[in-house]
Amino acid sequence: MNKPIKRDALSPSLITTGPLPSSRKVYHRSPEAPDLCVPFREITLDDPAESLFRVYDTSGPYTDAAATIDLNAGLPRPRCDWIRARGDTELYDGRPVTTLDNGDIGKDQGVPLFPVAHRPLRGIAGHLVTQRDYARAGIVTKEMIAVAERENLGRHVLAEGAAERLADGESFGAAIPLQITPEFVRSEVASGRAVIPANINHPEIEPMIIGRNFLVKINANIGNSAVTSSVEDEVEKMIWAIRWGADTVMDLSTGRNIHNIRDWIIRNSPVPIGTVPIYQALEKVGGDPTRLDWAVFEDTLIEQCEQGVDYFTIHAGVRLAHVPLTASRVTGIVSRGGAMMAKWCLAHHRESFLYERFGDICDLMHRYDVSFSLGDGLRPGSIADANDRAQFAELETLGELTRVAAAKGCQVMIEGPGHVPMHKIKANVDKQLRECGEAPFYTLGPLTTDIAPGYDHITSAIGAAMIGWFGTAMLCYVTPKEHLGLPDRDDVKTGVITYKIAAHAADLAKGHPAAQLRDDALSRARFAFRWRDQFNLSLDPDTALAFHDETLPKDAHKVAHFCSMCGPKFCSMQISQQIRDDVVVGMATMSAKFRDGGNELYVAGPGPSGDAGPAASGSAG
Amino acid sequence: MNKPIKRDALSPSLITTGPLPSSRKVYHRSPEAPDLCVPFREITLDDPAESLFRVYDTSGPYTDAAATIDLNAGLPRPRCDWIRARGDTELYDGRPVTTLDNGDIGKDQGVPLFPVAHRPLRGIAGHLVTQRDYARAGIVTKEMIAVAERENLGRHVLAEGAAERLADGESFGAAIPLQITPEFVRSEVASGRAVIPANINHPEIEPMIIGRNFLVKINANIGNSAVTSSVEDEVEKMIWAIRWGADTVMDLSTGRNIHNIRDWIIRNSPVPIGTVPIYQALEKVGGDPTRLDWAVFEDTLIEQCEQGVDYFTIHAGVRLAHVPLTASRVTGIVSRGGAMMAKWCLAHHRESFLYERFGDICDLMHRYDVSFSLGDGLRPGSIADANDRAQFAELETLGELTRVAAAKGCQVMIEGPGHVPMHKIKANVDKQLRECGEAPFYTLGPLTTDIAPGYDHITSAIGAAMIGWFGTAMLCYVTPKEHLGLPDRDDVKTGVITYKIAAHAADLAKGHPAAQLRDDALSRARFAFRWRDQFNLSLDPDTALAFHDETLPKDAHKVAHFCSMCGPKFCSMQISQQIRDDVVVGMATMSAKFRDGGNELYVAGPGPSGDAGPAASGSAG
Repeated sequence: MNKPIKRDALSPSLITTGPLPSSRKVYHRSPEAPDLCVPFREITLDDPAESLFRVYDTSGPYTDAAATIDLNAGLPRPRCDWIRARGDTELYDGRPVTTLDNGDIGKDQGVPLFPVAHRPLRGIAGHLVTQRDYARAGIVTKEMIAVAERENLGRHVLAEGAAERLADGESFGAAIPLQITPEFVRSEVASGRAVIPANINHPEIEPMIIGRNFLVKINANIGNSAVTSSVEDEVEKMIWAIRWGADTVMDLSTGRNIHNIRDWIIRNSPVPIGTVPIYQALEKVGGDPTRLDWAVFEDTLIEQCEQGVDYFTIHAGVRLAHVPLTASRVTGIVSRGGAMMAKWCLAHHRESFLYERFGDICDLMHRYDVSFSLGDGLRPGSIADANDRAQFAELETLGELTRVAAAKGCQVMIEGPGHVPMHKIKANVDKQLRECGEAPFYTLGPLTTDIAPGYDHITSAIGAAMIGWFGTAMLCYVTPKEHLGLPDRDDVKTGVITYKIAAHAADLAKGHPAAQLRDDALSRARFAFRWRDQFNLSLDPDTALAFHDETLPKDAHKVAHFCSMCGPKFCSMQISQQIRDDVVVGMATMSAKFRDGGNELYVAGPGPSGDAGPAASGSAG
Repeated sequence: MNKPIKRDALSPSLITTGPLPSSRKVYHRSPEAPDLCVPFREITLDDPAESLFRVYDTSGPYTDAAATIDLNAGLPRPRCDWIRARGDTELYDGRPVTTLDNGDIGKDQGVPLFPVAHRPLRGIAGHLVTQRDYARAGIVTKEMIAVAERENLGRHVLAEGAAERLADGESFGAAIPLQITPEFVRSEVASGRAVIPANINHPEIEPMIIGRNFLVKINANIGNSAVTSSVEDEVEKMIWAIRWGADTVMDLSTGRNIHNIRDWIIRNSPVPIGTVPIYQALEKVGGDPTRLDWAVFEDTLIEQCEQGVDYFTIHAGVRLAHVPLTASRVTGIVSRGGAMMAKWCLAHHRESFLYERFGDICDLMHRYDVSFSLGDGLRPGSIADANDRAQFAELETLGELTRVAAAKGCQVMIEGPGHVPMHKIKANVDKQLRECGEAPFYTLGPLTTDIAPGYDHITSAIGAAMIGWFGTAMLCYVTPKEHLGLPDRDDVKTGVITYKIAAHAADLAKGHPAAQLRDDALSRARFAFRWRDQFNLSLDPDTALAFHDETLPKDAHKVAHFCSMCGPKFCSMQISQQIRDDVVVGMATMSAKFRDGGNELYVAGPGPSGDAGPAASGSAG
């Protein structure tokens, strides 16, 4: 079964490995499950008074200096044991891979098969299979324990005032507890408010959770197109994306070799992988959406379920009756899957087969615990089209489908827009939460203006931060290349960091009890001129260091009490540190002096010499 | 008087000139004042069905193909005639420039004097001088007429539904009329809700307005520090910043030659220039804040008033009693001016001389119509310090000072934070509007998290867009180098474009009646695959084109109905265009057919085959 193919194997030199600056990988072992290794990144700070700082870590073994990486073998598969132990699944001979799966390309022309074949698992009929099944049955899985540990990051150091800090945020109805317990995770998954995307055929993952009562997550899209890219590029893009913090990765490949590229990605991915199966189905019917049917779609779903895809975007909400609602839009239908299904509905003048077959899709995905990401095929592609009837009609259908999938024990999240001006963002979240029973919302941006192609990571970060604050559980990144071309490696990093910013800004505003720890640690480092600590606590230490080095490259400048922005004489923080000392010592002395001399703490000045101004009224310090 | 110095003159090759792609400069001549030239940029579109598109243009003659630029002569001075015609000012022999003004540098070592000397103007005692004086007296100035024309950009093309579109936004109490009249401008300036920064000694400017009932503006900071930069760099940075859309520019130089560098900048700047005079005053006292006094500060104000600086940041709100409020902060005082004044107050243990002399400062600035930008010396420098007592105590003082300045006929805006998490942003605007009687708010960002040095243009664009939406009139940009070093030319551009995005997103959300015209025009171009139009309508055509060219460089690709992101088969918009045709033609046909055959518009499908799902209920298309 395990037949290594050495020909055309990927070289580790193609990918980026090794720890981030001053960081090391640590694994927390939970008392509830000592065989569980929950990963964190631990940043060592220069100041001995500051403890080591732990951050959430999505990067997998690639940043573990002790790990041996073999792309041709894939990552370790610790979840195999957990899944087997539950006794609800069976190994079977999977669907054979056909040349059509790779776009009809000849065996020697394309990307090789992944060297190691694993027989697929599926749920035994009538058994519990999905995380949601277990959660509803009151069973706390290993995945749930791992997730709780991961989400609790840093909270053990929370001081007394932590509860007040939580209250300081505005959560709009989210309820993040001070400590995340496995039981809390279970209850959130059971209710459908959160999903743990974890195909039983993707045992390489480090479990993570998506829900409004957890840290806001981000997704990075990768994938080739017919025009450009290769397997090496895509595997490196995945590893690169998780290095900088992508919580999940969607492989949106639409070119050739997509089956094999997907295999390489999944076997080497510690994060959940999402796909849009209709892209591959379209390849199988020669690129003509009107030739799509249930048979080819079902075949594609099985193919990808067996490979281990963790969540599928399914555009089952694009119904025949919705299509005419898009006719007067400025930008029509901008979702690829949505456009295909609309075309199909119109060409056949009948209801979408995805909608009609939705129950079958649920049954199939349930067997592998593939989560739904119900696609927003009619999302607005411009400010003009935001929150229109087409968009909201589809969202109402997604609510209906959410209930179907829930009844089948499936995990579900809901995709959202798109292009939305700021004042129309909250209505999207409110309607989604209402229609879909608080199922996790997973939005693309939204872009808050259309006028900045080349900067749509920024136009959308504004919307993403806000929609995350309002209750969106996962933010799909947008790169600077949006609308213009396929993102390269640099674009992927820019997109990921930008979305980490948006997600973290949302966590802060929601009042997440542990979010501000990192801001505070970094700000203390900044105020104390611990430059290296400031860089290393940041989302992108390499860029922070490089920017600093552009003007002040010497090592001595890393301890200087100024930077090139203001120079030594104008550094407010340097003066401010002196002031702090002055205040602590000086004010005490002066206060005593004034107390001795009279009642007034300060000698009131003459006040501003204008007509309208009141006299100086010094409030006591 | 006009004595050209050829030695060390600046070469035009140092700066960036010429129109943006497919753009030309046009000047609108108002019927109310035919001698007024109000600049716009007109973009020519490929589609003959789309009219020429006009956008607000801050770039001055540098983008006018017909203009002759001579940096050594400075820009034309059309306002001289308007000011003279008002008869309220007098020419006089200005304060002589001393070597101390340039940081005590020898004449031959530093930046040369600007080659052309102009005698300064000042208001005649007892006369109206400021735009606010005229506004209150019911006089509509040429500046107000120009501003109205400028702000009306594109509104003549507004269709019937424009008023509805305005209502579509959420303005939080702002009231932007459908047409801006000179009389509206006058009333806004009179009330103090808006300022027109326009020193009578800066007749080179193209007048602009800052207020919550106008387009949201942005400021770009430039300036050398003791560590780096030169006059050539700074003049080019100014011209570069306005090329991309900076509405005002602050020269924050703190190194040597600051008097002369400022002269070169002002004489060549068509936008208002702001400064922080205390920076230069500190240079004059050898860099020791405790040696600052009224004499050296007054001298510096006069020096800069005569040069033509349009607005001054004055940190008069940092009072002695406020200083101890900062002692327990995570990041103390992060405003340079604020830190200096706090240090001064503590060292002398007395009230700030800026606060005590505020009436004198008003009288002085009034004579030249220099606008106030009341500095927020105690703004928070970290998420932890946001909205604390120190910050709000100062804001209350700024409210008091606003009333003093208003009584003196001065124009006033109020500076704001800083670092503020999303959920605390609105409280800043609400308090500022209340305390300061709706005087224009002018904020730095705010940054919505501390953890991304190297990306603070993005952390702050999130806050800037939101605070602009809530009512901030001008957004001070933040570049990627914030906290790390002095921005270079690329950083300036990135900062400006990022803030144009934030300002425009705010205009859209406020329901500005003309804002969405550009989004709609660009989105139509996008949907019609008019790639060049999409690029040219964007904020940065050069970057959009370059990104597109990275993968699809050929000219033929500029008319292709796909891009490298999805490739030809997967382009949703291509499919969607076909759908539009199908819908228009096909649905009409099908509807007729169904109408003939029965009552149902669509044949209802079997519906999702789940237990919980309702039957398909096709809403009529």
